[in-house]
Amino acid sequence: MSEYSLTEVLEPRSIAVVGASDDGRGSQYFSTLIEFGFKGALYPVNPKYTEVMKIKAYPTVKDIPGPVDFVISAAPAPQIPRIMQDCAQKGVKGIHLFTARFSETGRSDAADLEKQILRIAKEGGVRIIGPNCMGVYYPKMGISFQNHFPKESGSVALASQSGQAAGEIISKTAQRGALFNKAISYGNAIDFNECDFLEYFANDPEITVIMMYIEGPKNGSRFFNLLREVTRKKPVIIIKGGRGNAGTRATASHTASLAGSTEIWKTAVSQSGAISVSNIDELVDVAVSFYFLPPITGRRVGVAAGAGGATVLAADACEEAGLDVISLPQEIRDELRNKGIQIWDWINNPADFSINMGDEDFGPQQLLKMMAMHPNFDLIISSVNVPGGGPPHQHRPPNPNNKGPAGNGGGGAPPWAQMSPDELLEQYKQINAYKPLLGLINDRSPDIKDINDPAQELRWKNTCELTVKFAQLKIPYYPSVSRAAVAASKLIGYYQHLNQNK
Amino acid sequence: MSEYSLTEVLEPRSIAVVGASDDGRGSQYFSTLIEFGFKGALYPVNPKYTEVMKIKAYPTVKDIPGPVDFVISAAPAPQIPRIMQDCAQKGVKGIHLFTARFSETGRSDAADLEKQILRIAKEGGVRIIGPNCMGVYYPKMGISFQNHFPKESGSVALASQSGQAAGEIISKTAQRGALFNKAISYGNAIDFNECDFLEYFANDPEITVIMMYIEGPKNGSRFFNLLREVTRKKPVIIIKGGRGNAGTRATASHTASLAGSTEIWKTAVSQSGAISVSNIDELVDVAVSFYFLPPITGRRVGVAAGAGGATVLAADACEEAGLDVISLPQEIRDELRNKGIQIWDWINNPADFSINMGDEDFGPQQLLKMMAMHPNFDLIISSVNVPGGGPPHQHRPPNPNNKGPAGNGGGGAPPWAQMSPDELLEQYKQINAYKPLLGLINDRSPDIKDINDPAQELRWKNTCELTVKFAQLKIPYYPSVSRAAVAASKLIGYYQHLNQNK
Repeated sequence: MSEYSLTEVLEPRSIAVVGASDDGRGSQYFSTLIEFGFKGALYPVNPKYTEVMKIKAYPTVKDIPGPVDFVISAAPAPQIPRIMQDCAQKGVKGIHLFTARFSETGRSDAADLEKQILRIAKEGGVRIIGPNCMGVYYPKMGISFQNHFPKESGSVALASQSGQAAGEIISKTAQRGALFNKAISYGNAIDFNECDFLEYFANDPEITVIMMYIEGPKNGSRFFNLLREVTRKKPVIIIKGGRGNAGTRATASHTASLAGSTEIWKTAVSQSGAISVSNIDELVDVAVSFYFLPPITGRRVGVAAGAGGATVLAADACEEAGLDVISLPQEIRDELRNKGIQIWDWINNPADFSINMGDEDFGPQQLLKMMAMHPNFDLIISSVNVPGGGPPHQHRPPNPNNKGPAGNGGGGAPPWAQMSPDELLEQYKQINAYKPLLGLINDRSPDIKDINDPAQELRWKNTCELTVKFAQLKIPYYPSVSRAAVAASKLIGYYQHLNQNK
Repeated sequence: MSEYSLTEVLEPRSIAVVGASDDGRGSQYFSTLIEFGFKGALYPVNPKYTEVMKIKAYPTVKDIPGPVDFVISAAPAPQIPRIMQDCAQKGVKGIHLFTARFSETGRSDAADLEKQILRIAKEGGVRIIGPNCMGVYYPKMGISFQNHFPKESGSVALASQSGQAAGEIISKTAQRGALFNKAISYGNAIDFNECDFLEYFANDPEITVIMMYIEGPKNGSRFFNLLREVTRKKPVIIIKGGRGNAGTRATASHTASLAGSTEIWKTAVSQSGAISVSNIDELVDVAVSFYFLPPITGRRVGVAAGAGGATVLAADACEEAGLDVISLPQEIRDELRNKGIQIWDWINNPADFSINMGDEDFGPQQLLKMMAMHPNFDLIISSVNVPGGGPPHQHRPPNPNNKGPAGNGGGGAPPWAQMSPDELLEQYKQINAYKPLLGLINDRSPDIKDINDPAQELRWKNTCELTVKFAQLKIPYYPSVSRAAVAASKLIGYYQHLNQNK
């Protein structure tokens, strides 16, 4: 008997949820499938009930009248062998075992039970995702394991050994406007493992970016061979859980993984051309970059990221991330002088507009556009002025230098700092038309005073609306210049590696 | 004539604001002094007006009838020599020159003007803060340069060469519950410089933590000698602006500083016992740690930071920051077994409570308390469950393991996960009574959907209220385990250095 492939398992005509009830754990899966509009037949399976959420329930999978392609099990571990036998008899193609308490407990009886389940599955031709995992998020099919994930489909893929990490990664990535094609939390990986998911994502033409959270690959040598091939076609960004002693200890009790040497791992990942990241935020930043940005192969960046000290620290952050913050080219300086811009000799890259000598229509966006049009620059990073102001610490201080024409001690913000949201967006669009643009929109929880302050509420609303519009313009944004610079540098590194290994 | 000290300059009986008007830049200073309730006499100075904000205005400082101790100048650069002469004649002790466009422009006439001003000041016995800076925030005196800074006084001090950085640092630190005694933005530092501020903060008994943003010290050898002395008395946390080529270029046009070699700088800072940080967030994290935590001299940490993958990554983050994530001591394991806790052999450090085998009253807080009471642990890091749930990605996924007693496939969250906010706070208080506790409260801007969702609004409100209560309990909190671990490690490093150099 030939094994079902992942494609066959993940395109089911019907799904049964074992352990579904009106209020238990299995029902979260059941109600989420309903909410996501799964197109095929849906069956609750629970011997205790005749119906679940007003849909007829069956005591076992075998009792379901029609064909069942996919099963989600939230039943306790001891019941799984019997359920697995039912699935085999029913001709089920694949089962997702949300059920846990197997080898990850470190107990020999639980590990034996896990082996027994795999044996039954192999004999009966049923493929397994899991156990001890959240399973499948595939919005186009109407399959999800959390009801708050976006229902819209995109081109990101994720394979995660951790269900918690999968949830966090999907939420954070989607919040930044990058949507998923498929995400799979796969836990102990006793059948389908990281190699199967990677290969499947590599061959799926709708997927452009692959993210992975791995504690310990089940098949290291196949994995790295595969990784080398896949990275030639699309970027693979990997976070390794269990890098030190305590982390390795934790992976054993989490997914029964052997984490292995971190140094060997990092070398192997980087040699394969994949992108190694060290935390979830970095994973999300890099994925969002690949989702929105075109290939970038040079490191010369034009930057405008706040005034004064922020300019200095932005330069440091970009250089420390491996970008090249080149001086303002002489041609641009000459052009500024010819235009009568008074700060032509003072302004530089990164651009600090805290000195304004009355150049009313010359602000960061105008200079960035000149940089974007100049051949010396490969990419642009720009802070984004939120209309109505940002949260308090984003406000420019009443700037000592910015006093309008001839330093009259009066005056307000210059015209370039008073653009409407639409004018601003138009500027960013124009910059982005010449060179890839990365926006900076500060991330900060409101504090208790903000919540009772209508002005702050408006600022938050403006910030949020702006992020939505950025995503629509396909311009990625980041909470800090350092995070943008690190993500850009990793993206550039990927394309440079690709060019060197053509 | 003996020079006025910083103490004399910063405790003025009266302040004149030169350049004040009803709507200009100087008036922001003027209105902020009124709003902050400055106790002494306040005089607007502007030849164009007879009154400013309904207070009698004077054409020059000399025309003010009473004594004037301190002057804030928002007048344009070319007027400063005359204003400085007026101040000298009036017997003004110190002037803060918000005014800019001096040596930082890179122009020789502007640099000459700066020298001329310093000469007049020296001859006339007037001390200068600045030029090109935001000046003084001293809430106890009723002096501030931004009206949204807290009016309450604390024990943090800041000297910052950048006004932008000062504003950002003050806002972010205060948002975390650590309040300021004094903060000074000092720009080009032609008179008072980093050494004067450092010495002054060191001798001020109300100050317990010193923060500095420095681009280039005016007097390097005096600074490092002083730093060595001061760090014996209190922690000094320093961020260096201008670490690479582009950053150094930027400091020149920002505060006319020569940034110097970063390697020499870092070595000198660490040899002096001061704490070097690489970005503003880290600066704030470390300051908040010193503000709330007692001295910690050991690195053995007990951690509970989420479930599954989050546990693994928390272990990695702590170890990579230099903390020691020790195994759960045998005594605690024995005690758990004796108490009949079913996961006694599985649970470890970091604690992952995603497997719950029906231990209804045994959750992260209970285990952390046992760790806190055990002599092997030096500190505790705990994620904080926000009542009503956090933002989406903080939600626990419907956990595969957490199925209540005997894995019946039903049941909800165990009792330990259903504590009221007050019960939770009581638990954290008890842990903190035994060992220093660092809380984790996730930081995330709401997205556009959150704002229109009353449930999300409630969660935000709960998060915000919780942070306020944490600050009241003197428990610091951090947006991620990695940031908490790095801050704790730097704090421990300070006290270890202190012990080794007694």
